[in-house]
Amino acid sequence: MPPPSIELQDTLAYLDANRDTFRDNLLQFLRIPSISAQPAHAADVRRAAEWLRNRAQRAGLHAEILETAGHPAVFAAGPQSPGRPTLLFYGHHDVQPIGEPALWHRSAFDPAIIDGKVVARGAADDKGQLLCALFAAEAWMRTAGAVPINLKFIIEGEEEIGSPHFGDLVRAERERLACDYVLIHDTAQFAEGVPAITAGTKGLVYKEIILTGPTKDLHSGVYGGQVANPANVLAQLIAAMHAPDGRIAIPGFYDRVAPLSPDEERSIAGLAFDDAVLVADTGSLAPHGEPGYSTLERRWGRPTLDVNGLYGGYMGPGSSTIIPSRAGAKVSMRLVPNMSADAVDRAFCDFLLDRAPKSVRVEILDHAQCDPYVAPLDSPGIRAAKAAIEVGFGRPPVVLREGGTLPILPMFKRDLKADSLLVGYCQPNCNAHSPNEFFHLRDFEAGMRTTAALLRLLRDAR
Amino acid sequence: MPPPSIELQDTLAYLDANRDTFRDNLLQFLRIPSISAQPAHAADVRRAAEWLRNRAQRAGLHAEILETAGHPAVFAAGPQSPGRPTLLFYGHHDVQPIGEPALWHRSAFDPAIIDGKVVARGAADDKGQLLCALFAAEAWMRTAGAVPINLKFIIEGEEEIGSPHFGDLVRAERERLACDYVLIHDTAQFAEGVPAITAGTKGLVYKEIILTGPTKDLHSGVYGGQVANPANVLAQLIAAMHAPDGRIAIPGFYDRVAPLSPDEERSIAGLAFDDAVLVADTGSLAPHGEPGYSTLERRWGRPTLDVNGLYGGYMGPGSSTIIPSRAGAKVSMRLVPNMSADAVDRAFCDFLLDRAPKSVRVEILDHAQCDPYVAPLDSPGIRAAKAAIEVGFGRPPVVLREGGTLPILPMFKRDLKADSLLVGYCQPNCNAHSPNEFFHLRDFEAGMRTTAALLRLLRDAR
Repeated sequence: MPPPSIELQDTLAYLDANRDTFRDNLLQFLRIPSISAQPAHAADVRRAAEWLRNRAQRAGLHAEILETAGHPAVFAAGPQSPGRPTLLFYGHHDVQPIGEPALWHRSAFDPAIIDGKVVARGAADDKGQLLCALFAAEAWMRTAGAVPINLKFIIEGEEEIGSPHFGDLVRAERERLACDYVLIHDTAQFAEGVPAITAGTKGLVYKEIILTGPTKDLHSGVYGGQVANPANVLAQLIAAMHAPDGRIAIPGFYDRVAPLSPDEERSIAGLAFDDAVLVADTGSLAPHGEPGYSTLERRWGRPTLDVNGLYGGYMGPGSSTIIPSRAGAKVSMRLVPNMSADAVDRAFCDFLLDRAPKSVRVEILDHAQCDPYVAPLDSPGIRAAKAAIEVGFGRPPVVLREGGTLPILPMFKRDLKADSLLVGYCQPNCNAHSPNEFFHLRDFEAGMRTTAALLRLLRDAR
Repeated sequence: MPPPSIELQDTLAYLDANRDTFRDNLLQFLRIPSISAQPAHAADVRRAAEWLRNRAQRAGLHAEILETAGHPAVFAAGPQSPGRPTLLFYGHHDVQPIGEPALWHRSAFDPAIIDGKVVARGAADDKGQLLCALFAAEAWMRTAGAVPINLKFIIEGEEEIGSPHFGDLVRAERERLACDYVLIHDTAQFAEGVPAITAGTKGLVYKEIILTGPTKDLHSGVYGGQVANPANVLAQLIAAMHAPDGRIAIPGFYDRVAPLSPDEERSIAGLAFDDAVLVADTGSLAPHGEPGYSTLERRWGRPTLDVNGLYGGYMGPGSSTIIPSRAGAKVSMRLVPNMSADAVDRAFCDFLLDRAPKSVRVEILDHAQCDPYVAPLDSPGIRAAKAAIEVGFGRPPVVLREGGTLPILPMFKRDLKADSLLVGYCQPNCNAHSPNEFFHLRDFEAGMRTTAALLRLLRDAR
């Protein structure tokens, strides 16, 4: 790795000199309880947007609020120079609800530094991480008078409620948001001290099956063995979704699955993941899944099918001798490249309608549908991100995929024709969405350095 | 059928002459809200027992309260003559809760005669039906000075809460309750105007399976395909309980099943049950069950297995992408002669423990266990009951079995060595346990005549 350029050295020095200010700014931002899910906090979400716009303006950027049909977003941009690469930074200024307040060691919106960690709701997800990008931009503006590339920010206020208006916003602002890459910090390191680039996320098809047999609950003695029991039928349908060996048995399900590349297989093997960690983290008795793949290969590279919820008949304590009128299951499938959510959805419905006996009514609800996403691993952007992480963290990242789903990634690809660089700085166990969320100050600072380096390295990346 | 004896004619005339008194007595009994399930009504259950004791004494019987650890029972007896058959009448003076009051056309404990029906909670189940036996006894006492056989009554106050203390009471009072037959009116006709003798009831084994995979709900993206999902495993176990053709696939399940006798098969065929009635009554799309048997054969003569309840993971509206930590199912099996509840219970548990993968923890709870019961169809008691029904209703009964379970029947067989005669007078759709329970006055009167005839016919039965 070549030493940082003189101008980058100045920028990194600025970040170092202003670390206390940036930390105090972060604490200030975290005091705004911008919980998008709770209508009582709508004004706080707006306040967070305004705080961010003002802070971006102070950093020397153009910044403005973008209204949506829901909570407002913030757009910001540095000076734009034709001919230079354009990077769109995506983040969100809203936060998750806090859950049970008693589980927090201190108030969720009264941030403090404890053992070198900023503890507060939103510390990692995503306020702390998005500020890494904003402060890196400020460092360039203050030291070089400009960011080395064309930099834009789009920070939405509804990520934690599923981004209901973000797609419309992106399509409406397609011109202003045009870019070569999207940069996102809203992911995590692989493990403490092991920074990561997340190259792909899984797609999702989430369905609910509702079977109705009799139109009312029946006495299981009087009617047992005479009419179809929808709970028994449901169990048969769910069981038939997997072959005995653990593979998914829906016809056509694997048709378009792209195998992991040799590079990815090597990279995963190099992480030497120990299944004992999986067992310890989850409390499961043993790993279980599709045969022929390691745990990380299954997590990142293989499609899955899980029942997320199951209900029907008498669910209280004790017993009730009924044949339930209805039984239902929530079933979700995670997809990998190059599966199509639409095709999987159709295969799932066809499977159910083909197999369900004529003695039950079948209703299928839609809950979510999202395609998988994977970034091209040999892109100039990924190469620049790897080098930037070496600058910021002093070691190269691992490249991984995510078992979860980020609907914005296929959306950016489709509507902006841009691939995403997912470079997150927080710990994987940072309690995002849980009590006592935290962001290590050392990761906050390494993150600012990384993003600052990336803004320089992307200029010449090829 | 020979004409009734002169003494029976006198007894029937007494019943006819006193019909208004008996009807008024029934209404009085029904005004006592003896809901055994509700502690606030404990004094009312006692009041019902006292009313019954007093009424039995006025009928000329010895009668007393028998205390239990719960609600009291009533014991009564006519004069006992050595050498004559002894009949123990079983009934219950407690009633079901009334459910939603708004669904009653009038107050549940303010009985009235509407279109020839007594409408009130307990009208059929079991106050009205048990009074048929008491008033028949009074008719014999008043006209002949004695009941033709040795008659005893045991009327409990906890039937509607599962008779928690009745077994202990029977064992403690085994001497006083000794008998040749038990007579029970707490069943129904087969259809309006088609009186029935119920010859058998099914046994019951009711279990709950709880599977635990991870010790907490997991993110289905992060952990999908890596650990066993207990809801998916549960579905596989439940599905495996039936073969594709609808037979139960638990090894050994059918081992001791006694086939229906040719008489029973003929009797069932003679009822000409139309499956369209099943479909209309239940709202099911089609009949379904073990192949090779008609609906009534399956209802009365074949064992069944049904899921009564199913739960696990996220059961609310919308979606949640979790792998549930736990999933459970309530599963009950109905047994026919000569199956053993204990053996079925063991076969069920063995099946689960053999098949469950090592990746989940299996917990099995017990909710109920009861053997099946069937009366010998060629007994003098059944012959006498058939003839008595011809006297009371003017037509012979059909002989059927019950798909439901009556734990007292195998208990009487075991502890008193007595078979039961189940002769019920109410309509099968009489709304027992539902709003607007009713008992036709004409069935009340036919019932008194039937019981009066039975008390005579049993004397010489052989």
